Amino acid sequence: MSPFTGSAPRTPRWRHLEVREEGGVTTVTLARPAKLNALTFEAYADLRDLLAELSHRDRPRALVLAGEGRGFCSGGDVEEIIGATLGMDTGRLLDFNRMTGQVVRALREAPFPVVAAVHGAAAGAGAVLALAADFRVADPTARFAFLFTKVGLSGGDMGAAYLLPRVVGLGHATRILMLGEPVRAAEAERIGLISQLVDEGRAARAARDLAVRLADGPALAHAQTKALLTAELDLPLSGAVELDAATQALLMHGEDYKEFHAAFTGKRPPVWRGR
Amino acid sequence: MSPFTGSAPRTPRWRHLEVREEGGVTTVTLARPAKLNALTFEAYADLRDLLAELSHRDRPRALVLAGEGRGFCSGGDVEEIIGATLGMDTGRLLDFNRMTGQVVRALREAPFPVVAAVHGAAAGAGAVLALAADFRVADPTARFAFLFTKVGLSGGDMGAAYLLPRVVGLGHATRILMLGEPVRAAEAERIGLISQLVDEGRAARAARDLAVRLADGPALAHAQTKALLTAELDLPLSGAVELDAATQALLMHGEDYKEFHAAFTGKRPPVWRGR
Amino acid sequence: MSPFTGSAPRTPRWRHLEVREEGGVTTVTLARPAKLNALTFEAYADLRDLLAELSHRDRPRALVLAGEGRGFCSGGDVEEIIGATLGMDTGRLLDFNRMTGQVVRALREAPFPVVAAVHGAAAGAGAVLALAADFRVADPTARFAFLFTKVGLSGGDMGAAYLLPRVVGLGHATRILMLGEPVRAAEAERIGLISQLVDEGRAARAARDLAVRLADGPALAHAQTKALLTAELDLPLSGAVELDAATQALLMHGEDYKEFHAAFTGKRPPVWRGR
Repeated sequence: MSPFTGSAPRTPRWRHLEVREEGGVTTVTLARPAKLNALTFEAYADLRDLLAELSHRDRPRALVLAGEGRGFCSGGDVEEIIGATLGMDTGRLLDFNRMTGQVVRALREAPFPVVAAVHGAAAGAGAVLALAADFRVADPTARFAFLFTKVGLSGGDMGAAYLLPRVVGLGHATRILMLGEPVRAAEAERIGLISQLVDEGRAARAARDLAVRLADGPALAHAQTKALLTAELDLPLSGAVELDAATQALLMHGEDYKEFHAAFTGKRPPVWRGR
Repeated sequence: MSPFTGSAPRTPRWRHLEVREEGGVTTVTLARPAKLNALTFEAYADLRDLLAELSHRDRPRALVLAGEGRGFCSGGDVEEIIGATLGMDTGRLLDFNRMTGQVVRALREAPFPVVAAVHGAAAGAGAVLALAADFRVADPTARFAFLFTKVGLSGGDMGAAYLLPRVVGLGHATRILMLGEPVRAAEAERIGLISQLVDEGRAARAARDLAVRLADGPALAHAQTKALLTAELDLPLSGAVELDAATQALLMHGEDYKEFHAAFTGKRPPVWRGR
Repeated sequence: MSPFTGSAPRTPRWRHLEVREEGGVTTVTLARPAKLNALTFEAYADLRDLLAELSHRDRPRALVLAGEGRGFCSGGDVEEIIGATLGMDTGRLLDFNRMTGQVVRALREAPFPVVAAVHGAAAGAGAVLALAADFRVADPTARFAFLFTKVGLSGGDMGAAYLLPRVVGLGHATRILMLGEPVRAAEAERIGLISQLVDEGRAARAARDLAVRLADGPALAHAQTKALLTAELDLPLSGAVELDAATQALLMHGEDYKEFHAAFTGKRPPVWRGR
């Protein structure tokens, strides 16, 4: 729990997402299974606001992002989103598209690692949510479809044209974003889009196990690793090396580093505090 | 056809390239098969000027870049280029090298996707032309050879040291550019240098099919996807997300987005207009 | 030998590294085999200073970095480094971490290619030293372990969070740096972390062969290729293309380019001078 909270009240209940906390791991489940967890305006807004609250206040040590039912997330709802945007003016359209981009930035800039548990469809905005996570734990039914061009939009949605080339290279990313065709689990693993491939039906469990391991380990070190990976994509080598030096100097004053040394010297496993 | 044309006359005929237009797809063929399509000063200049005319005036919806005969392109002609540059002063050498770099920038910044059809040798400048395309459709005879160091020059020619690490990663790119050894089709596919591997002798046909598909689809969405992929290699995440938001807001006012929704609602395939 | 030397004396002997020069190839061996070549403060300082002297004064045409005994390098010594840093104040910790980062920058910015010969463990700082080389020649016993989080520190150490995503992509890099688990030779080759996989026990020999080949070839072209690869990771396309043009214009005035043409015309192999 961060002491840096202001006047804004805590949200008592998230109506468009399921949110559970256990042992430092927050699990966010897209829970609209009858619609393959299609996102509505309210679901995007909840994701944006939830990630802000978690980042500023609750500070989980890891977050799992999962989908209920037959798949992870089919993306923006055709009727509720596409239909509605057709009647919007320019300012409103910018508002909407900035909001979806803010969700991706919030995932990348959150001070904790994010593990996406992907089974079945991760389509449109759903594919980008998974892409913005730090880990994609997927089962063989996983299918990533950056299908934006198939609805007449740019394949670069919510930062996908920034992130995907940095994950799978510019050649694969161009093909995937331009054509909008599904990337199935085997190809996704081959090109580096999947972090961990698990048996069918095991993605949620394995994602949770990974998140628990991250939370129970040296969690501050994990969070800083994520922060540096995010920042150093946009830094030159000189700045990256300086940021690393400052970060390690900081963590060398931390409890976990001292604990590692004591445990190593005492020939016992370390007891991580995450600070 | 763009309305933004000035006084400069349209080139009636390209003497150093074959250029055909059909159904929104322009096919540019390097057609000097007796010399494996080795490039001359005039061929570079034609590529530079053609890409400018296409970008500013004719606006194809997709471009195919192919080579006639036994291979794609053997690069700069040893006698006509290397021999001639030995007698040039510094200013002239800069002019030449800037021209070749402008061809690569024109390929990356063209407002339409570029599909390279690669069979046989894609060597030297030929390898970089293929690398600068958005898609590389290749058959099993394809052989990419960034052989600049083998003539005593830097492996970073025409943006290769920028592009190749972003396509295949820094490790592979260092090896390939420093040693100048050929990358055969199987390896090229494995490391992500080939977009689509097709049967022997089918590269030109398959490249054309892909270009037709891109041109007949939501072509403005394809063009914007390319523009964002190009721009966001050089943007931080924050700028990329903002550019995506503005682009999607723009395209949400477009005809193809509306058409997608009408087609989806009417349970019929969309009829794309490319705008 | 560079003429640009000042008053600083040449180091008569490196006490914490083994350094040999032969035929333009300098071989630096981490030689503390009883401790798996664990690095001490003095070894880091020697690497920093040696790379500066080599870059400014001796100008080898290629450098091999190898480890004696059972492995390449087990990283910072737990007792001599971790134990000692626990008693340091902030300024001293910054000094130490900046020094290790300077070693990586010196490897990336050295005006000659660096070939790491990796067998057995390349752990912690040892993994980053190998990562910062231009080539990783490894045998099947090679095991890269970026195990910083396992001691309570950030996985982004010495530029690893900058370099690794640019070599293997952000997805693999996140997994490897966050979890700190070893990457064995087969996986390392699959994801592009190894440049050349050789038979067991042959890494040192093969690395030396590669370095000799680089040194005996057009060495200035090799050095410039490395410089452009390093610089262009941090440049936009426009700047990269301009840098390439200036570099090629420069090398087109060089001896090796002229020699290539004479050899080609004379139907004989070129005799490279490296200038």
